Amino acid sequence: MTIRIGVIGTGAIGRDHTRRINQVLAGAKVVALSDVNAASAASVKADVAPEAEIFATGEELVASAGVDAVLVTSWGAAHEAYVLAAIAAGKPCFCEKPLATTAEGARRIVDAEVAHGSRLVQVGFMRRYDEGCRMLKQVVDSAIGQPLMVHAAHRNPTVPDHCVTEMAINDTLIHEIDVLRWLLDDDYVSAQVVFPRRTSAAPRDLKDPQIVLLETTKGVRIDVEVFVNCRYGYDIQCQVVGEEGIASLPEPMAIVIRKDAKLQNAILTDWKDRFIASYDVELQDFLAAAARGTASGPTAWDGYVAAISSDACVAAQRAPGTIVPISLPARPALYA
Amino acid sequence: MTIRIGVIGTGAIGRDHTRRINQVLAGAKVVALSDVNAASAASVKADVAPEAEIFATGEELVASAGVDAVLVTSWGAAHEAYVLAAIAAGKPCFCEKPLATTAEGARRIVDAEVAHGSRLVQVGFMRRYDEGCRMLKQVVDSAIGQPLMVHAAHRNPTVPDHCVTEMAINDTLIHEIDVLRWLLDDDYVSAQVVFPRRTSAAPRDLKDPQIVLLETTKGVRIDVEVFVNCRYGYDIQCQVVGEEGIASLPEPMAIVIRKDAKLQNAILTDWKDRFIASYDVELQDFLAAAARGTASGPTAWDGYVAAISSDACVAAQRAPGTIVPISLPARPALYA
Amino acid sequence: MTIRIGVIGTGAIGRDHTRRINQVLAGAKVVALSDVNAASAASVKADVAPEAEIFATGEELVASAGVDAVLVTSWGAAHEAYVLAAIAAGKPCFCEKPLATTAEGARRIVDAEVAHGSRLVQVGFMRRYDEGCRMLKQVVDSAIGQPLMVHAAHRNPTVPDHCVTEMAINDTLIHEIDVLRWLLDDDYVSAQVVFPRRTSAAPRDLKDPQIVLLETTKGVRIDVEVFVNCRYGYDIQCQVVGEEGIASLPEPMAIVIRKDAKLQNAILTDWKDRFIASYDVELQDFLAAAARGTASGPTAWDGYVAAISSDACVAAQRAPGTIVPISLPARPALYA
Amino acid sequence: MTIRIGVIGTGAIGRDHTRRINQVLAGAKVVALSDVNAASAASVKADVAPEAEIFATGEELVASAGVDAVLVTSWGAAHEAYVLAAIAAGKPCFCEKPLATTAEGARRIVDAEVAHGSRLVQVGFMRRYDEGCRMLKQVVDSAIGQPLMVHAAHRNPTVPDHCVTEMAINDTLIHEIDVLRWLLDDDYVSAQVVFPRRTSAAPRDLKDPQIVLLETTKGVRIDVEVFVNCRYGYDIQCQVVGEEGIASLPEPMAIVIRKDAKLQNAILTDWKDRFIASYDVELQDFLAAAARGTASGPTAWDGYVAAISSDACVAAQRAPGTIVPISLPARPALYA
Repeated sequence: MTIRIGVIGTGAIGRDHTRRINQVLAGAKVVALSDVNAASAASVKADVAPEAEIFATGEELVASAGVDAVLVTSWGAAHEAYVLAAIAAGKPCFCEKPLATTAEGARRIVDAEVAHGSRLVQVGFMRRYDEGCRMLKQVVDSAIGQPLMVHAAHRNPTVPDHCVTEMAINDTLIHEIDVLRWLLDDDYVSAQVVFPRRTSAAPRDLKDPQIVLLETTKGVRIDVEVFVNCRYGYDIQCQVVGEEGIASLPEPMAIVIRKDAKLQNAILTDWKDRFIASYDVELQDFLAAAARGTASGPTAWDGYVAAISSDACVAAQRAPGTIVPISLPARPALYA
Repeated sequence: MTIRIGVIGTGAIGRDHTRRINQVLAGAKVVALSDVNAASAASVKADVAPEAEIFATGEELVASAGVDAVLVTSWGAAHEAYVLAAIAAGKPCFCEKPLATTAEGARRIVDAEVAHGSRLVQVGFMRRYDEGCRMLKQVVDSAIGQPLMVHAAHRNPTVPDHCVTEMAINDTLIHEIDVLRWLLDDDYVSAQVVFPRRTSAAPRDLKDPQIVLLETTKGVRIDVEVFVNCRYGYDIQCQVVGEEGIASLPEPMAIVIRKDAKLQNAILTDWKDRFIASYDVELQDFLAAAARGTASGPTAWDGYVAAISSDACVAAQRAPGTIVPISLPARPALYA
Repeated sequence: MTIRIGVIGTGAIGRDHTRRINQVLAGAKVVALSDVNAASAASVKADVAPEAEIFATGEELVASAGVDAVLVTSWGAAHEAYVLAAIAAGKPCFCEKPLATTAEGARRIVDAEVAHGSRLVQVGFMRRYDEGCRMLKQVVDSAIGQPLMVHAAHRNPTVPDHCVTEMAINDTLIHEIDVLRWLLDDDYVSAQVVFPRRTSAAPRDLKDPQIVLLETTKGVRIDVEVFVNCRYGYDIQCQVVGEEGIASLPEPMAIVIRKDAKLQNAILTDWKDRFIASYDVELQDFLAAAARGTASGPTAWDGYVAAISSDACVAAQRAPGTIVPISLPARPALYA
Repeated sequence: MTIRIGVIGTGAIGRDHTRRINQVLAGAKVVALSDVNAASAASVKADVAPEAEIFATGEELVASAGVDAVLVTSWGAAHEAYVLAAIAAGKPCFCEKPLATTAEGARRIVDAEVAHGSRLVQVGFMRRYDEGCRMLKQVVDSAIGQPLMVHAAHRNPTVPDHCVTEMAINDTLIHEIDVLRWLLDDDYVSAQVVFPRRTSAAPRDLKDPQIVLLETTKGVRIDVEVFVNCRYGYDIQCQVVGEEGIASLPEPMAIVIRKDAKLQNAILTDWKDRFIASYDVELQDFLAAAARGTASGPTAWDGYVAAISSDACVAAQRAPGTIVPISLPARPALYA
């Protein structure tokens, strides 16, 4: 059986997922495309989905009888409506992050899915599919005792000039917010933000670096360095300190060279290279679940909790030194 | 377009490739199976290829109009006949190593393909598709100057009691024989074998470890330690020493743990874990070429040269200390 | 010329320094010993300083015309009086940490030395003499741009049952307090303490681990994980994040072994092994300066600042979540 | 007690050892100097041994009643005569390598020492005192089972234009010849030399790199890459493959930096930096034994065996591909 996929939003990520489904992964085919920019959809059809039908709107695409499951890769503000439409149609739906641009929007999706009674939504937190993260989770779950602390870093070589302080949370830390909850099987209870000396490379409206301190329900303390103009590379670090030992996220595979009086290996500079393989695994997981009429991986609830948690971190940015509490509503049974 | 694949030989590797084509990779479907053991073919059909037709013989499978391309994953002695049949039928053919059990057999395949006039055969040297090997080749080609030496090791934790000295060449070194030619873009001119002190863990008829010294047409000197009862793990090492620097094959990704007074990470113990990802890439490459009616990757010529080179290494085993020359026939233009 | 050294306090560290001076280092000889426990002094004389004279009191030892310079290695509460006596006698004095048990005591020593008009006191912060720390300082000073953050850890496998929460500052963090000031050439302006989930291995009256957050005058943010029952080893980590790059303290030299399906090397478990070589360098530095009638290395002012800073950290322990300011008096010109 | 040392030969190494004894190490003093170049001796006296007496000849220095022990750091051709003189005088003698410029000369020293009846000579093979080598020996002796193979490399960034092929043995490999015997507690039975493709950076009369294959009495097989124009750095590698595991010489301590899209650390380029600490340990060992009227560390026998073994390697250079046997005379009981 081949699952028939409709893709709403044919920008860079929509195009790439379409290519992935049609040329790399087994079991599915992109049969429908839609974008507010018709030329974009036509271009993706021409390049990687010649047999796809182009729909004028995402709503029509969702409603099409020829579409079994939906990818929402439009701009963020439109995610909520398309995901709600997919739930209403009872079709599995993969939604790139953010699930919605507000916690309230994410809540509406959760409520709709709960009302539907079974999972249909997978949120695009691809880190959970990264081979290194999966290996780390396995070790954390089995080999180092109870986790007590996490030391993490999310570093980017540079960001555009328009970047502002909040984006360090909403565009950058958001990945750690999700993946560390998953890694620890835990939730956050508070956040504090510390602003170190500012790099001279930071754009005018961006305080960079930042250190975000999170506390979990089990008392685990997390410090995440967010440094998006670190210059030297794209670098994701994570070290979990447990009662019996410490485990660290592996460095990406690289060739070690002895040359020019240095022992050296390349550090990646582009985030796409860092997580490219995880997109394949992520979508394969979606396709496998969609074939059974359901969804797997990060849930709408995870998307909602990420929104609540990042809102708290933004509040903590605005009151440096203050510990901002994070409180979550009761978790619906669907996500137990 | 979906390529219709026939698989001849449904043992472990045939089953795995069938699963790979039907469940992991895009663009192909296994539509035909054949095995001398009918129950094996039936079992693979039941598990991973429900729509496949079972053929009584490999020859019938090759001849079927419903089969576009063929995988030869039978036992080694039968490879030659099936590959020749595929060439005769003008169908792309992926053949697991060895291409044939003798250099003469491999030569017959080369001649048939040359007579056909275009490539149809890909030999299953999956190392060339290993991400680490590819990264190493890129660095060797660009960053360390002319290669002068290669220090390599191929270590297995243990081998069965029936293993004999020659198998260290034909089953183990054969991978280095192929991948180092490819890595250096060079051919061998001589081989010498050195027998170090024997491990007490070696089976009766196996001298283990062995060191194989190879010289190439460009004068590069290669030493490969083959140690198949090293106990500690499955470990592939390769260091290329160039005029300007040294590059090394990366270690497989692993979680570094601090525990029990040790800084430690796991070493793999099963070769299948080491190269599992490269099988996907290898077969995807085959499918992409087969869709164009041709073949890519390791050629029949590569299989033939590997056979000649390994024969010389076996001769060198029988005369320790002797330098055995390796001379290759002229390379047909098809493989230029 | 041979410098004649008197050692006050012949416990473990006094004995070891005596051995060091008499058997390892050039240019000095221990000629005088004193300890409240006469048997201890006699034993050290017998074992490693046969020609030394035993004095009934430290004061008499300091006063002896045959003593050129003094080592104060008695218990902490007695340090202040002996150091003041040495200053009064105009003799160079090496004092193990703490310089005094209170900031006020340290201040009295600073005042006495300032009144004397030139340096006589070296405080035993041996970390500054560690080869790795020195290499790190050189890189921080030259290769990574302005420091912005420091991520550090001080881990001990276990501590005795009588240990209490404050000791994590006064006995453990005290080393980072000194060495990070030196590394950054900076001073602290505030401290905050975070208590992560407690390890089940912690003694009853010790909260373990702790994270101490320090801010410097230049805005550098430091997080130090203090974890003294980490079980796995004695482990000192320090990573300095600068505007242009990141530098890390090296791991102690160790033999990497491939064995038992692991790539592994030993982690030290005893702090004495970690810094043993630095004691030699530290004392050699003292002897070289003493030969010129002065002192080098960590100053009385450094000892005083360490006391003020650690007092603030203890205050921060008592008010978790609070940011405790650290303010230093004006630095006397002697220590400019 | 202070041992009174006489130094014969005040070139770079003689000067450095004099400084070491007078300014770094405990227990000895250089009281006598001699050099064929009187100005050199005077300069060393002025700089680092103001109280030393200058002797017109080494023989007079050895004969002086004020000299307890002798360092022979003259040019190689004069070593034998001075060492024989020291033995005749019954004085402990440290001799830089080579012990003599011919195996016969070394044999005469062995015979003289045997006739004397107890050890007086230490040969300056400082590698045995390198911390990394000592750590490796400990692991090889205890943790990896019977050694089966050694893979080693001795790389220099560059050598002067006058260097010739033999010097790769006599000046470079000589260190591995000694240290690997010691590491394995074994002797050599044969040598073979392989000449890889030549680096374009090699001087006219030097074949570079070379690979020397050694076999030991226990059947251990050693391959040493000698590459003295490797450009990238001074790099000593040694990996011992045992029945149960593999141990490797550690890299020199270095600061790992993340900068400019690279994870990097410096590789040394000067051999003196690599082994500087081992000279201190080596001479301290000599002084400790000399204080007891004897010698420790590498013996005259070790110097003799190194000469025989390196002669065989030179013979193997002249007949590439030939396996040259190495046979040693019976070991005198003094060196058992």
